[in-house]
Amino acid sequence: MSEQAIEVNGRRYRLPQSPTVVVCVDGCEPDYLAQATFGGHMPWMKRTLAEGTGLVADCVVPTFTNPNNLSIVTGAPPSVHGICGNYLYDAASGTEVMMNDPKWLRAPTILAALAQAGKRCAVITAKDKLRRLLGKGMQGICFSSEKADTVTEADNGITGVLDLVGMGVPDVYSAGLSEFVFAAGVQLMKTRRPDVMYLSTTDYIQHKHAPGDEGANAFYAMMDRYLGELDAMGCVIALTADHGMNAKVRMDAQPDVIYLQDVLDGWLGEAVARVILPITDPYVVHHGALGSFATVYLPPATDAAALAQRIAALRGIEVVLTREQAAERFELPADRIGDLVVVSERSVVLGTAAARHDLTALEVPLRSHGGISEQRVPLILNRRIDGLDPQRRWRNFDAFDLALNHAQ
Amino acid sequence: MSEQAIEVNGRRYRLPQSPTVVVCVDGCEPDYLAQATFGGHMPWMKRTLAEGTGLVADCVVPTFTNPNNLSIVTGAPPSVHGICGNYLYDAASGTEVMMNDPKWLRAPTILAALAQAGKRCAVITAKDKLRRLLGKGMQGICFSSEKADTVTEADNGITGVLDLVGMGVPDVYSAGLSEFVFAAGVQLMKTRRPDVMYLSTTDYIQHKHAPGDEGANAFYAMMDRYLGELDAMGCVIALTADHGMNAKVRMDAQPDVIYLQDVLDGWLGEAVARVILPITDPYVVHHGALGSFATVYLPPATDAAALAQRIAALRGIEVVLTREQAAERFELPADRIGDLVVVSERSVVLGTAAARHDLTALEVPLRSHGGISEQRVPLILNRRIDGLDPQRRWRNFDAFDLALNHAQ
Repeated sequence: MSEQAIEVNGRRYRLPQSPTVVVCVDGCEPDYLAQATFGGHMPWMKRTLAEGTGLVADCVVPTFTNPNNLSIVTGAPPSVHGICGNYLYDAASGTEVMMNDPKWLRAPTILAALAQAGKRCAVITAKDKLRRLLGKGMQGICFSSEKADTVTEADNGITGVLDLVGMGVPDVYSAGLSEFVFAAGVQLMKTRRPDVMYLSTTDYIQHKHAPGDEGANAFYAMMDRYLGELDAMGCVIALTADHGMNAKVRMDAQPDVIYLQDVLDGWLGEAVARVILPITDPYVVHHGALGSFATVYLPPATDAAALAQRIAALRGIEVVLTREQAAERFELPADRIGDLVVVSERSVVLGTAAARHDLTALEVPLRSHGGISEQRVPLILNRRIDGLDPQRRWRNFDAFDLALNHAQ
Repeated sequence: MSEQAIEVNGRRYRLPQSPTVVVCVDGCEPDYLAQATFGGHMPWMKRTLAEGTGLVADCVVPTFTNPNNLSIVTGAPPSVHGICGNYLYDAASGTEVMMNDPKWLRAPTILAALAQAGKRCAVITAKDKLRRLLGKGMQGICFSSEKADTVTEADNGITGVLDLVGMGVPDVYSAGLSEFVFAAGVQLMKTRRPDVMYLSTTDYIQHKHAPGDEGANAFYAMMDRYLGELDAMGCVIALTADHGMNAKVRMDAQPDVIYLQDVLDGWLGEAVARVILPITDPYVVHHGALGSFATVYLPPATDAAALAQRIAALRGIEVVLTREQAAERFELPADRIGDLVVVSERSVVLGTAAARHDLTALEVPLRSHGGISEQRVPLILNRRIDGLDPQRRWRNFDAFDLALNHAQ
């Protein structure tokens, strides 16, 4: 059996017998599936939940895209793979840096190991920010919808993606960006039948639409059709999400924000503490860089535990943890988070300074994520798996384990 | 000043200078207002939030209708007024009894005291179950939409309600039952101008419709028109809610239920523990008696703390408290709750035995309440009140205090 399996980050995975597709649906709060299934918009999902396996799992906190996508493809939490946000404060250099360079990834991916074991792998993401991280060390196909028109054999292991899919490059702020991922996945499966495929969408729709509304149901109906096609081709499918999504507004529909940098400047003096929002990335239009998770860097002399208590007493804060507490509770790399980790409540987001957030592009009441309140995500397989412990705390990064070790 | 004020349950209230209306909107999760305001369905609310006072308060846990309505009208938690559910297990007699008889109410209401001080009071509720509790000891008008056709001067302080309102008696399961409350309130204010009015609706719409959906927006648009009329008549209006509301379903849209009696029967033997669902009342069609709060009565020899830990370890449970812990944390009357209080998570409800819940009448995916996850409610006044502490934990039962002591 040893040549039939790989070991990655301390977990053993059997090599796939059937083409295997792991899907990460960005921002897929489980209620999106419930409402769409009830409304008749997801016939494949309805059948799959009845005949396959439907679990609700916990994703990684911070409930952001990059930490969770990397957890899924490494089968491990951020304490192992190192990606704990989109954004990092490098205290040594005093600069804030994007964490989308593969150099920040500390662990090998299951995809790279499968490719090394001779399996043909393909990764398709909606936004390009994830592509290089997910593809690190992996021989195979790896491209994003966003840059589908500039793929090269050398960089992406494929050319002619637009022709293959029969679609133009969608706008980066559109449901089309995610549809392109599914459409390309189906065409790849039809034409090249990869052994393993990882599809990762964007949460443009989920940031704008609540579960059960027309825009959400249309998105999930689209997804359901493509998943049905993959299923019909004999694929084992594991579907999970990077995080959930909640409304984050006051009663007047304006974002309910605690501007933490302003608060700390008032308490400690200007710029004594530095608030980092790891949700920040080049694509902030749909959430204004407002999420429910922040880290705080403090000068060495500060009493972090006392400050944590003071922040925790603010209305709208769910929990404040010191670096050590957060690293343990959320399985984060202690060297890449601040002295404090601040999580706000379900309807509240954290900002830096009011003057630094441009909210003019928010066209609808803010929906966002990042907190513990967005931790529940689907973990669904189109195969019945008997004997699973319903009391186990399933994680989204169990997706490859279930798909490869239990579903085939 | 002493003849200008009353004292009730340790709090002092000034007598009203203007007609004062306190509204309890059943199941009004704050997001209903945000989405309806954003969509242009609540012009009065939009103006009121901008020019008046908009707070988000915590209601009482269990987040049920009766405990919270009684908290609002007594200005006190259930530890003071005694009403901690719709339903009570009388351990002495071994019987389960409804708690809607006024004999269970241990504290005077602000309404009764205002009437005694010479103020003309009126109470209108949607369902009749609340009427007698709210009207206890109060001289004045007190009736329900549900029984608006059988009012008498002796029982209700009024006759001819249907003629006054110009509507027939609405179906008990309809939005009309709540509209009747508002319509009657407006007509009463027009014709009799009571000094103080308490209006309490039903959550029929909120059990079926999520914030922002068409049915919800139509309900809140209706409410907004009537509130605007009351405002135009010079009323001080305080609007709050008894509890919020959340979707409580699995991904296949079926109720996500922990049948706690079945679990405990399996652990301890049949009927050794007795699970009580205080949400139970004669009107269970729209929620199947499924909420996120249960109490458990145990035989004397049981190790309650150990059992609490074991229940708390179940997936979907938010917290399990012993009687003493629950009485302290939620301000409940210790003699009227079980040996354990069990609260489930936001998307999960608690049942007794699967065989005892008839879910066939649930026409849409279950939405319900009862837990800590439904504790946030609006607390809105149509008057600007300066100097309020935004860090204070406001309660829905501060409504009369704000309306009488700060808004006029």
